[in-house]
Amino acid sequence: MPCQTNGDLQLIVEEAKKYTKLGKVADYIPELGKANPGDLSIAIHYPDGRCISAGDIDKKITLQSISKVISLALVLMERGNRYVFERVGMEPTGDPFNSIAKLETMPAKPLNPMINAGALVVTHMIKGDTVEERFNRLLGFIRELADDPSIGYCERIASSELEAADLNRALCYFLKQHNIIKEDVEILLDLYTKQCAIEMNCLDLARIGMIFAMDGMDPLNGKRIMPDDVARICKTFMVTCGMYNASGEFAIKIGIPAKSGVSGGIMGSVPGKFGIGIFGPALDEKGNSVAGLKLLEFLSKNYRLSMF
Amino acid sequence: MPCQTNGDLQLIVEEAKKYTKLGKVADYIPELGKANPGDLSIAIHYPDGRCISAGDIDKKITLQSISKVISLALVLMERGNRYVFERVGMEPTGDPFNSIAKLETMPAKPLNPMINAGALVVTHMIKGDTVEERFNRLLGFIRELADDPSIGYCERIASSELEAADLNRALCYFLKQHNIIKEDVEILLDLYTKQCAIEMNCLDLARIGMIFAMDGMDPLNGKRIMPDDVARICKTFMVTCGMYNASGEFAIKIGIPAKSGVSGGIMGSVPGKFGIGIFGPALDEKGNSVAGLKLLEFLSKNYRLSMF
Amino acid sequence: MPCQTNGDLQLIVEEAKKYTKLGKVADYIPELGKANPGDLSIAIHYPDGRCISAGDIDKKITLQSISKVISLALVLMERGNRYVFERVGMEPTGDPFNSIAKLETMPAKPLNPMINAGALVVTHMIKGDTVEERFNRLLGFIRELADDPSIGYCERIASSELEAADLNRALCYFLKQHNIIKEDVEILLDLYTKQCAIEMNCLDLARIGMIFAMDGMDPLNGKRIMPDDVARICKTFMVTCGMYNASGEFAIKIGIPAKSGVSGGIMGSVPGKFGIGIFGPALDEKGNSVAGLKLLEFLSKNYRLSMF
Amino acid sequence: MPCQTNGDLQLIVEEAKKYTKLGKVADYIPELGKANPGDLSIAIHYPDGRCISAGDIDKKITLQSISKVISLALVLMERGNRYVFERVGMEPTGDPFNSIAKLETMPAKPLNPMINAGALVVTHMIKGDTVEERFNRLLGFIRELADDPSIGYCERIASSELEAADLNRALCYFLKQHNIIKEDVEILLDLYTKQCAIEMNCLDLARIGMIFAMDGMDPLNGKRIMPDDVARICKTFMVTCGMYNASGEFAIKIGIPAKSGVSGGIMGSVPGKFGIGIFGPALDEKGNSVAGLKLLEFLSKNYRLSMF
Repeated sequence: MPCQTNGDLQLIVEEAKKYTKLGKVADYIPELGKANPGDLSIAIHYPDGRCISAGDIDKKITLQSISKVISLALVLMERGNRYVFERVGMEPTGDPFNSIAKLETMPAKPLNPMINAGALVVTHMIKGDTVEERFNRLLGFIRELADDPSIGYCERIASSELEAADLNRALCYFLKQHNIIKEDVEILLDLYTKQCAIEMNCLDLARIGMIFAMDGMDPLNGKRIMPDDVARICKTFMVTCGMYNASGEFAIKIGIPAKSGVSGGIMGSVPGKFGIGIFGPALDEKGNSVAGLKLLEFLSKNYRLSMF
Repeated sequence: MPCQTNGDLQLIVEEAKKYTKLGKVADYIPELGKANPGDLSIAIHYPDGRCISAGDIDKKITLQSISKVISLALVLMERGNRYVFERVGMEPTGDPFNSIAKLETMPAKPLNPMINAGALVVTHMIKGDTVEERFNRLLGFIRELADDPSIGYCERIASSELEAADLNRALCYFLKQHNIIKEDVEILLDLYTKQCAIEMNCLDLARIGMIFAMDGMDPLNGKRIMPDDVARICKTFMVTCGMYNASGEFAIKIGIPAKSGVSGGIMGSVPGKFGIGIFGPALDEKGNSVAGLKLLEFLSKNYRLSMF
Repeated sequence: MPCQTNGDLQLIVEEAKKYTKLGKVADYIPELGKANPGDLSIAIHYPDGRCISAGDIDKKITLQSISKVISLALVLMERGNRYVFERVGMEPTGDPFNSIAKLETMPAKPLNPMINAGALVVTHMIKGDTVEERFNRLLGFIRELADDPSIGYCERIASSELEAADLNRALCYFLKQHNIIKEDVEILLDLYTKQCAIEMNCLDLARIGMIFAMDGMDPLNGKRIMPDDVARICKTFMVTCGMYNASGEFAIKIGIPAKSGVSGGIMGSVPGKFGIGIFGPALDEKGNSVAGLKLLEFLSKNYRLSMF
Repeated sequence: MPCQTNGDLQLIVEEAKKYTKLGKVADYIPELGKANPGDLSIAIHYPDGRCISAGDIDKKITLQSISKVISLALVLMERGNRYVFERVGMEPTGDPFNSIAKLETMPAKPLNPMINAGALVVTHMIKGDTVEERFNRLLGFIRELADDPSIGYCERIASSELEAADLNRALCYFLKQHNIIKEDVEILLDLYTKQCAIEMNCLDLARIGMIFAMDGMDPLNGKRIMPDDVARICKTFMVTCGMYNASGEFAIKIGIPAKSGVSGGIMGSVPGKFGIGIFGPALDEKGNSVAGLKLLEFLSKNYRLSMF
């Protein structure tokens, strides 16, 4: 069933697009800096297979931090909750995503899996003997979630990120010093940057959001892709810390479990209802798609989507 | 309709009661230290007026930090969202409730209304010319929420807290230095400690939780006590920062909007379903009722109450 | 023996005066804001009683933070080293003078007696039953050091400071919460602001610096005003943390034990040689007299005064 | 002129040796963990060539953090003060030597050259095209200071440290992210760990301390090894931050410019008088030789060596 352009959605996108001017494309990773700041598109994926959209939803985006939710789901399935949460915490933090200070004043265990330090620990836990094997395990899981075997990753962006990853290197070595990460740092960063560079379009993103919204069940074929408690844990983190240090405000104003990435992508999961995929690369100063936030705010208000 | 003792609930309370031994009664306020650490009781209040309970639900408890949600609701109604959120933030924080450090490294505006610094700013915003007038406005609101005109406050505990309030004094003067609080600090603390000392039983607490669960509408008489967006904002803060720096873990494991206090009380709001009032004064090291948490965990798991 | 205007010193003052334009008079205490930013004067007091000067050395200034060294000397004499250093630390800190964060992440004991938190603890230790008795004890000590019985304090500035002291109130209540300060906070602040408002001219200041330079002995009458280890401890703090968070740079570039105040005063002690009193109210962003620093830099370089 | 065992010194060493039991040998670098915790020796080197000693002064020790003062002297000579202090600060800090938090809350420039972050920036500035060339430049300087061409470095300890250097790696990558360090991190760490592993006996250490004490001049042959302002800057840092976060207490109690290392070495420089080399590998919890501190305290008190 092809995705249909929707008139109402197009009107909202046009309105939200005005806000792209208030943001800036991330340029600390040179390859990301090439995105067009005026872009904005959205796809909504329903459990019955219907899909509506607006904007150029075929444009591909890399997951970046959105991948943190998916790697968390995989690792919770592979390792179990106890193992995972002995190594990464559950508490939101008012600090920026790349903060290292809390690692020092608190116990070295990262506060949650959505900040970089915690996401690196999560990726560290993906099972497998080689980067290739571990990456393919994650990629296979993502292809299954999106029902799209064509999903791959962008080598250019992965290499570009690996070169610009000194802050993540600092986090890794700090965690290694405290025995939270045990493997070779460059191997972990190779895997992590490939994970961040996994590429898909808004439609795929919306479909993955829909699977989380349906508690891990693929409603079209009745197959359970992940246990419902794993899906629920992921949605909880999306609420408490999915939108960097604007998560609290996002929960108040919009109230949809969502995860953003510096590529300008946002994946949303309206529990029991549908998944959302957004692409809008102009970011606000906290790293969230500025027009994407507006778009979600319009949707949440008009259709009363807040879960609170 | 009187509240009925419920057999299933009694069994769960008996089970959870074992955990009271792992906690300690708060004693930094001497009057609170007199509570019996073995106590545990619960009331559940349904929108249709039914109420079930277990344990001694007539025992009175002071609200302490639970009052922070209610004063926030009042102030949002009196002042509007924009005014309030210019003075207090929306972001959760991994720091303890009484932390002052973030006020210094971040802008001086408190990160959220559930930490002490933020709650003091909220109480500061309660309208009125005298402590008495402002306190009565808050008390009237609480009596309406609980539908119980007999609710008052405990003078002994209020005085005991006022004397032990040096850390809150420090927070107030810091906020005053930064022009976030403008009134006399002792007046504010007088009002704030009275607010914390408002006293009720589990049944009242459950009823207030039920009003929040019903988005601010009193379903028995159809009267709207607060706008639905105010109720939703309050529930959002209960999820992201209602259980001190264990809020993230609570959201993951239990997933019910809830607010705890150092008296050992917990108010829960299961959206659209019912309100919960719990009293169990033995606290864990983060300040939450240790058996109360267990009780909520059993309930959430058995009856699938998590909103995620 | 009257103080003589010195030609060389006048030339250096004229040169340093140009830098007054780079600073600003402190205005957080309204009364201090009335000083003339273009002022600059200096007196140098030798052990043999000679004194040379430049600029208007009769103008009176309040000690402000300079008083911290003198109250420390008094308290070390009254209480002994062990008692004092159980309550305040010896370590310099890179934080600003009014920081509260370190009190929280480190043990609550203030890091050193030159930051406000530490100085408040020192003043707290001055013996006596009333503010008046304790203040007179300190004032008597200062009159003896300066050999000037006419020294008093400025009531206007003391009151002005007491009103603007909310940050110091915050520090006091924080310290009181942690049992480091035990008396009534307003009484302590009354004493502390009077201490800060003690008023003298550059000549007095230079004479006090000379007594520290001579290890606590008054060389003119052979009387020991303080034990030599007390004088040495004070000079050590002047080196490691006498110039706020520019102390390290000051030690490198100038190398003279010195203490500054936000009134624009600087007291210097060149060990074994002479004392210096400077007044230049235009401050740099760290709170030190901008032209006073230049003046000391010229003197230190030309006459090789660095103790390193 | 051979170094002579001195009776008085032997008595003091015997007394101080009792304190070795209160400390522990550093074992985070496995090779260092092999030292004998009961060892204690001292050499004192006078400008006229005389040398007195006690204990086994032929035992070799690695410089570890003591090397930070010497690399700073070299870099100040090679690059000039302005260049160096644009890249590393001058302020002491109350934080532990390996702290990363301040890099984040303050500007990323390390607070001073004695904490690891600052020392890494200093070593980064040593001129030369290869690690070998840069290391030899530093080694040559050290051999000249000690007048001992046999000085080398311990390969085992250097390799052991390079493997255990994850925290320093974290600091380097953090600094690289902020453009303060520009070279390959592994190359810098190779050079830095070799620098730390430079090995000498107490006599050599005392002689280097003597050169600093004499403001950079070798008094025996009249040759100036470094400009006097470089020597003075180094001694200033030894006072304000040479003994980790016990520097303030050390300045108060002992008052001798000194730098310690986790190998248990301490180099002291009594201005104008003599140099001291101490070896006592049992460390206190801040990383200073516990018996070495006692030894210096006895010497400072008995011979009035404090510069304050």
